[in-house]
Amino acid sequence: MNFEQHFDTALAGLHEAGNYRVFAELERKRGSFPRATRYREDGSTHDVTVWCSNDYLGMGQHPEVVAAMHDAIERCGTGAGGTRNISGTNHGHVRLERELADLHGKDAALIFTSGYVSNWAALGTLLAKIPGIICYTDALNHASMIEGIRHSRCEKRIFKHNDWRDLDRLMAADDPAAPKLVAFESVYSMDGDIAPIAEICDVADKHGALKYIDEVHAVGMYGPRGGGVAEREGLMDRIDVIEGTLGKAFGVMGGYITGSRNLVDFVRSFASGFIFTTALPPALAAGAVASIRHLKAHDEKRQAHQEAVRKVRAALDRQGIPHMQNPSHIVPVMVGDAAKCKWISDILLEDYGIYVQPINYPTVPVGTERLRITPTPFHTDADIAHLSGALCDLWSQCALARAVA
Amino acid sequence: MNFEQHFDTALAGLHEAGNYRVFAELERKRGSFPRATRYREDGSTHDVTVWCSNDYLGMGQHPEVVAAMHDAIERCGTGAGGTRNISGTNHGHVRLERELADLHGKDAALIFTSGYVSNWAALGTLLAKIPGIICYTDALNHASMIEGIRHSRCEKRIFKHNDWRDLDRLMAADDPAAPKLVAFESVYSMDGDIAPIAEICDVADKHGALKYIDEVHAVGMYGPRGGGVAEREGLMDRIDVIEGTLGKAFGVMGGYITGSRNLVDFVRSFASGFIFTTALPPALAAGAVASIRHLKAHDEKRQAHQEAVRKVRAALDRQGIPHMQNPSHIVPVMVGDAAKCKWISDILLEDYGIYVQPINYPTVPVGTERLRITPTPFHTDADIAHLSGALCDLWSQCALARAVA
Ligand SMILES: Cc1ncc(COP(=O)(O)O)c(C=O)c1O
Ligand SMILES: Cc1ncc(COP(=O)(O)O)c(C=O)c1O
Repeated sequence: MNFEQHFDTALAGLHEAGNYRVFAELERKRGSFPRATRYREDGSTHDVTVWCSNDYLGMGQHPEVVAAMHDAIERCGTGAGGTRNISGTNHGHVRLERELADLHGKDAALIFTSGYVSNWAALGTLLAKIPGIICYTDALNHASMIEGIRHSRCEKRIFKHNDWRDLDRLMAADDPAAPKLVAFESVYSMDGDIAPIAEICDVADKHGALKYIDEVHAVGMYGPRGGGVAEREGLMDRIDVIEGTLGKAFGVMGGYITGSRNLVDFVRSFASGFIFTTALPPALAAGAVASIRHLKAHDEKRQAHQEAVRKVRAALDRQGIPHMQNPSHIVPVMVGDAAKCKWISDILLEDYGIYVQPINYPTVPVGTERLRITPTPFHTDADIAHLSGALCDLWSQCALARAVA
Repeated sequence: MNFEQHFDTALAGLHEAGNYRVFAELERKRGSFPRATRYREDGSTHDVTVWCSNDYLGMGQHPEVVAAMHDAIERCGTGAGGTRNISGTNHGHVRLERELADLHGKDAALIFTSGYVSNWAALGTLLAKIPGIICYTDALNHASMIEGIRHSRCEKRIFKHNDWRDLDRLMAADDPAAPKLVAFESVYSMDGDIAPIAEICDVADKHGALKYIDEVHAVGMYGPRGGGVAEREGLMDRIDVIEGTLGKAFGVMGGYITGSRNLVDFVRSFASGFIFTTALPPALAAGAVASIRHLKAHDEKRQAHQEAVRKVRAALDRQGIPHMQNPSHIVPVMVGDAAKCKWISDILLEDYGIYVQPINYPTVPVGTERLRITPTPFHTDADIAHLSGALCDLWSQCALARAVA
């Protein structure tokens, strides 16, 4: 077989469909967030304002987080030097796990190299190692959850997005004696909608199921201490596994689960993706601890963030730029065409110094291509005016539909 | 179902078999490697010498790596702030990919959050997306490769460990027109043996197969520039994918593949485990670049390391402590019993201040439980004498078999 040609053909297909991904090459600037330097293909650079970062609260440049990382590097060096079991467990990992257990009001926590790996490994292990278990998974769950479920090869049912009635129907149709697990997210990152957590818990409880929630886009951001939407709604103790990331609002990298001592110890003891990999560098653990502690104590950061989101929505409304309504901090501006979406993004970048990555298939369904805007408390009123003005220009040039006022 | 009880029973099974893992809680000390502080369960601490780190060359405390990380944090902050596609690509990632492509003499490289994820995602994608491909996998391949192959659901054949004749037989028995991929490692981390790379390449070429090698325990360590065993043997250009980690000899964290431009772009474009996860923090990328550059230019580090390995083997021989002979830097001291292995490790830790983690099932087969000793250039002659003396004491107390002189 001619492998090169196979790769070439597949890539050509992406180009044709307008789905070939070109990564914007940036250099983040500590202290100037959301400003960054962008490198063009020819090596020249220009300044841009980033409008699509998941460093939602700018914690990736926070002095306490920066200082904690510097300090850990000075004390412990640059890497963990081993897997968690073989010389890689640092005191900082243990502290971080305590901090996370406390954040979610659980007995225990377990950290992974990323949120992706935490979902894949935790769901993969729980579902593979509880014989006969059936997994009920929301239709819009993240790739990492889908892969974990797929890995386990357990029976699965896909329930309609956020539809607890559909979930109830599916669960009722299965053997009442079969062990069950319900996997869902709180904030869905592409549409920004939020799950009916209480209703899903009610249904799951009725059928005796384990409840697994991904709060990746909510930890640090919702709840009086940043415990996520389940904290805000007083529901943390109803959920068996709360999963999160250290790489978005907390501004560092890594993922985790929290839950009962036995459940966490079970995943710790059996999950290949946890066991057979080098542990997080002590500096990342220290940075995460600093960030979580700060956000536990600073609810005003969350308020300022929500205020920024309101301002951006209002500015878009004034220009008639259509954006999806939702109760979260994510502002999806709908374009509905892959090539157009990329074209708008390219012009925003080159002509306006505004960076918003086009979101195309397979991240979102074909026909729902969008600009996913993530306001932060560090975007100024002038930034917001510049963004909405630029979109207004492009909407006219592109003859795109306006929102009806 | 009573989930808690299910977890409890499974954990009790591990305890009974002597396979329950207790992580040693350490605090690495920059500048004093391989010395570390160990935390006991009661919170008290003592000093230990680590003899089982995969920071093989002590690069995790190297001033150039430390400085590069500090500098990147000062300039760029603590995290990447997004997935590679959505605002997460930093200039430092691009530099690191260039450095890695150069290290292995390839067109291109792609970084992942870990070596585990690089194997899982790259093999999973290549094998799933080349229709009809058959994977030939060494019987002792690492968990991350096994999971990647399993993920793809392709046809697979397991060839006897390092046995190219068996590989040839298996390949000859399959349809000559079927696309094929051979997956193997260079240095096997638990036995320390090294694959017959040239012979495996010959067989793979005869059958027109893609060749995929995991050099995780060899990068930085072998070859004039640290390109691995394939570099040492002048074979890098015969291999399609060279995979490695940034978390062992390079002293940081992360993983990668290198290969042709199209192959790498193909994995970049289709691998879920690459696409849907936050990128490495710029500081880790910068630390890795510094480490790779340093090791490209300092072959004497590799010489000093091999010298340390020779000294440790000679000291064990003098005491009659049985260790597996192999051509690498890994010194497996065989115990052959899970409970005894843990007992020895516990006494070494508490009474001698020597930390060597017991390696039990499932990392190695039952009956081959061992202490896996990894000498570094930073272990002194006194450290070596202390280690071999301690093992000598314990071998007598435990009535363990001695090696025949
Ligand atoms: C819902 C969801 N879960 C999990 C992840 C993975 O988290 P991480 O980026 O830490 O790998 C992401 C995004 O990357 C996500 O959007
Ligand atoms: C052979 C092999 N491949 C891959 C890995 C995974 O690399 P990482 O620790 O960077 O995840 C390891 C060990 O952890 C390994 O021993």
